[in-house]
Amino acid sequence: MVIYSLLNSTLKVQANRCFLSLFRSKITKNLVRSMSMSNNGPSNKIFNKIDELKPTFIDILAKAVEIPAVSSDESLRPMVVKKAHFLVEQLNELGFHDVQLKELGIQPPPVTNSNLKLPPIVLARYGSDPKKKTVLVYGHYDVQPASLEDGWDSEPFKLTVDESKQVLKARGSSDDTGPLLGWLHVVRAHRDAGIEFPVNLITCFEGMEESGSLGLDNLIAHEAEKYFKGVDTVCISDNYWLGTKKPVLTYGLRGCNYYQIIVEGPAADLHSGMFGGIIAEPMTDLIQIMNSLVDSKGKILIKGIDEMVAPVTEKEMELYEKIEFSLEELQAASGSKTELYKKKEDILMHRWRYPSLSLHGIEGAFSSAGAKTVIPAKVNGKFSIRTVPDMKSEKLTQLVVDHCNSVFKSLNSPNRCKTELIHDGDYWVSDPFNASFSAAAKATKEVYGVEPDYTREGGSIPITLTFEKVLKTSVLLLPMGRGDDGAHSVNEKLDISNYINGIKLMAAYLHNYAESPEN
Amino acid sequence: MVIYSLLNSTLKVQANRCFLSLFRSKITKNLVRSMSMSNNGPSNKIFNKIDELKPTFIDILAKAVEIPAVSSDESLRPMVVKKAHFLVEQLNELGFHDVQLKELGIQPPPVTNSNLKLPPIVLARYGSDPKKKTVLVYGHYDVQPASLEDGWDSEPFKLTVDESKQVLKARGSSDDTGPLLGWLHVVRAHRDAGIEFPVNLITCFEGMEESGSLGLDNLIAHEAEKYFKGVDTVCISDNYWLGTKKPVLTYGLRGCNYYQIIVEGPAADLHSGMFGGIIAEPMTDLIQIMNSLVDSKGKILIKGIDEMVAPVTEKEMELYEKIEFSLEELQAASGSKTELYKKKEDILMHRWRYPSLSLHGIEGAFSSAGAKTVIPAKVNGKFSIRTVPDMKSEKLTQLVVDHCNSVFKSLNSPNRCKTELIHDGDYWVSDPFNASFSAAAKATKEVYGVEPDYTREGGSIPITLTFEKVLKTSVLLLPMGRGDDGAHSVNEKLDISNYINGIKLMAAYLHNYAESPEN
Repeated sequence: MVIYSLLNSTLKVQANRCFLSLFRSKITKNLVRSMSMSNNGPSNKIFNKIDELKPTFIDILAKAVEIPAVSSDESLRPMVVKKAHFLVEQLNELGFHDVQLKELGIQPPPVTNSNLKLPPIVLARYGSDPKKKTVLVYGHYDVQPASLEDGWDSEPFKLTVDESKQVLKARGSSDDTGPLLGWLHVVRAHRDAGIEFPVNLITCFEGMEESGSLGLDNLIAHEAEKYFKGVDTVCISDNYWLGTKKPVLTYGLRGCNYYQIIVEGPAADLHSGMFGGIIAEPMTDLIQIMNSLVDSKGKILIKGIDEMVAPVTEKEMELYEKIEFSLEELQAASGSKTELYKKKEDILMHRWRYPSLSLHGIEGAFSSAGAKTVIPAKVNGKFSIRTVPDMKSEKLTQLVVDHCNSVFKSLNSPNRCKTELIHDGDYWVSDPFNASFSAAAKATKEVYGVEPDYTREGGSIPITLTFEKVLKTSVLLLPMGRGDDGAHSVNEKLDISNYINGIKLMAAYLHNYAESPEN
Repeated sequence: MVIYSLLNSTLKVQANRCFLSLFRSKITKNLVRSMSMSNNGPSNKIFNKIDELKPTFIDILAKAVEIPAVSSDESLRPMVVKKAHFLVEQLNELGFHDVQLKELGIQPPPVTNSNLKLPPIVLARYGSDPKKKTVLVYGHYDVQPASLEDGWDSEPFKLTVDESKQVLKARGSSDDTGPLLGWLHVVRAHRDAGIEFPVNLITCFEGMEESGSLGLDNLIAHEAEKYFKGVDTVCISDNYWLGTKKPVLTYGLRGCNYYQIIVEGPAADLHSGMFGGIIAEPMTDLIQIMNSLVDSKGKILIKGIDEMVAPVTEKEMELYEKIEFSLEELQAASGSKTELYKKKEDILMHRWRYPSLSLHGIEGAFSSAGAKTVIPAKVNGKFSIRTVPDMKSEKLTQLVVDHCNSVFKSLNSPNRCKTELIHDGDYWVSDPFNASFSAAAKATKEVYGVEPDYTREGGSIPITLTFEKVLKTSVLLLPMGRGDDGAHSVNEKLDISNYINGIKLMAAYLHNYAESPEN
């Protein structure tokens, strides 16, 4: 009763909507523990402090996004490095120790500048108490390209605080500068509130995520028994809610196998007037092979793939039924009514747990505006297959190559054809009820007043699997932003409420995880 | 007899291999007239003078090709204009009159510089004797781009005289600076030899041929009754022998209808991880439509097109049998053994008198090196159909659009699809036995000692049809270079023998045409 009345009085003062959820939600053993933590004050004090620091957090984000850290633009590489140094300043100011800029060497080809250095990885520790659990948090400080000419409403590398929509607009606001800074803000809030930090924190912030995370895998392997020794779990905040209203925890990702079909014949591009009709054109062959891969309903036509997909269980079906998602959200996201499925469950399952095949384009063919009467001598068709349990990459590649070879053979063409894997990345599925996920679920209830939806994602975050495999720990994907943030698009934004509640979520997660009996 | 002995003695002195042909060829009424002209001396004297001026001709070509008159490169536009002025100097020096640089106004979009002026057309007259026939000669002084990085063995904008191969190597040597200068050299040879010029000559030299001949159609229409009034025939020297050994006269060209199929769905490009499998991808639909157009054997699959093609006559078949051409020449030209036909007749007929369909590429899809997991929102498939008698452009377009619409409809796709004509240019077939062709055939015998092959070309030279239609005259295509000159490729060359004999051919043609009883 003491607990309740104390909380009640707090609520009256704060009118903190988040805490109300504690009363609405079912009281479990964990919840009681959480409340007792609240009783001790930290969550409450932390949440208050986070609210209080809101102008500071927005100010720091504004400073960070002003640095155009576009990793794919070689000329902006100094800006990426500048942002790493900005983070180092912040970390030092907050009292992080063992702050290191890990150099990754020269960027491998293709690059224009053959001496281009990869941006460093920022490692830092906050606390090293052997009695506490150690959480590694990953984020990336590089961003996608952006310019006013792309159609932004305001300068992309200047934070615009839209008071009417209550959003923070800038390149990187949601992907991933905002979430990355969130972890630093959690430390600041603890420091300023005079509350002991619940875990040992290790940061691993990279500057090449938008350009293939070059060098990161090696670094993780290299530091596994050194800087990362003793890590109990990894938390990545670099994805998004499914929609715009309900927070989610993400426990699965599809993998991706990317292929190319190269068809070549003549020694050089030919003129279609002189050669059209008398030579076998590589494009004609390629289009026929590409046509044999997938139909307009999205059905993959390569034999043997369906058989590799794990069957849907009844328990799994129930998961989809619970999730808040609507056809309208898909239509809004794609900006069209071009969906292949109308039912929520079908949409989610085909995004998360079934493979898909997309034809991306053709290298070597005419691709500009206008009209060019070329017969391309060598064309390279690109497509990828999103993979799911229990598809094995090697087996899949064999099926793909056999299929393409067989179709090409049936054409009886004098051209040459080769199909090959460009890269693959495995799917990832975690136990959504392990200690880390349970801590995050509880934190979600504390902050947002609702049970999170358990989602998977259709895309890949290869680093997830690397952390899990190399560090042999669980990995949690704990998104801060919403599904409509426009991460790689124009007018990228982060809702102010997602920013501030996201910081609270991180804080509450660390406290809950610290108190969890298991790792 | 007097004639023969006189010629015989001349031959002994000159050992001119060309003249020998006069004795080998069948004596016709025309030939007797031609020989009587030779008796009067002009051909003989002209040919000698041309041989004598060879160093001068090579020197002038060297000066001309040094100007990098690349019409597709906006930054080199001043060079294109400089080359026009170079020609004006040459024309003035030779005594041409009424020399005009016809301005064509501002280049229409797409251009970077919205005030970019089109290069001028160089008009000039040589003689205006109402008793003489008037021949309009067309050539272009602009060239294709070229750089050492493309793989040239020597600087492309510097004439390299390869003494071992006896070729003149430079961008523009064969396409079309060499042939264009040929007409000026004919005037010089007459002037220096003191021989009366047999016709009134009008030049029409343009600087945008490699970039769509912008403005030329309008100029021809505008000058038809002014500068070009009284033109009896048009001669274009801007194509090539079929092979490398036998001179040809060209009496036909295929037309070209260029189409695009636009398929669009989502509002913007989407990520294949998030959307793969749940939306109908425009690329999948487009590939299926493109796949339905043509098969790997080159057979056009659009119904109704075959029925439009004029049937082969027995007389026509005989023409192909006579022509010197081999499968090996096709293989050498394409740098591969990817031919669809082995028999000479089949190859020639499918290059010249049957339609063909080439898939050129896709705009809007991923087209770079590497791997990008994009679902393109809007893709634009480009293809063209080479047209032949009796295909009508409008009817063809209707068949194409109906076909694409019908295939797209069968896909039941929620995307939108539109097929449209980008541009069309009619085929052209001339009477290969009219006065102009007969004069050229006779000239070929005089210079090369053989009957020319009568060829058509698979490609289009739209200006041919414009001249024929607007000036209501015959048009002759009289090539100077060989089939392996590499007109748009690296190491473009013109054989020295083709250059010098080509000038003789032009001279003899003008004399023969002047003496022809008809126009």
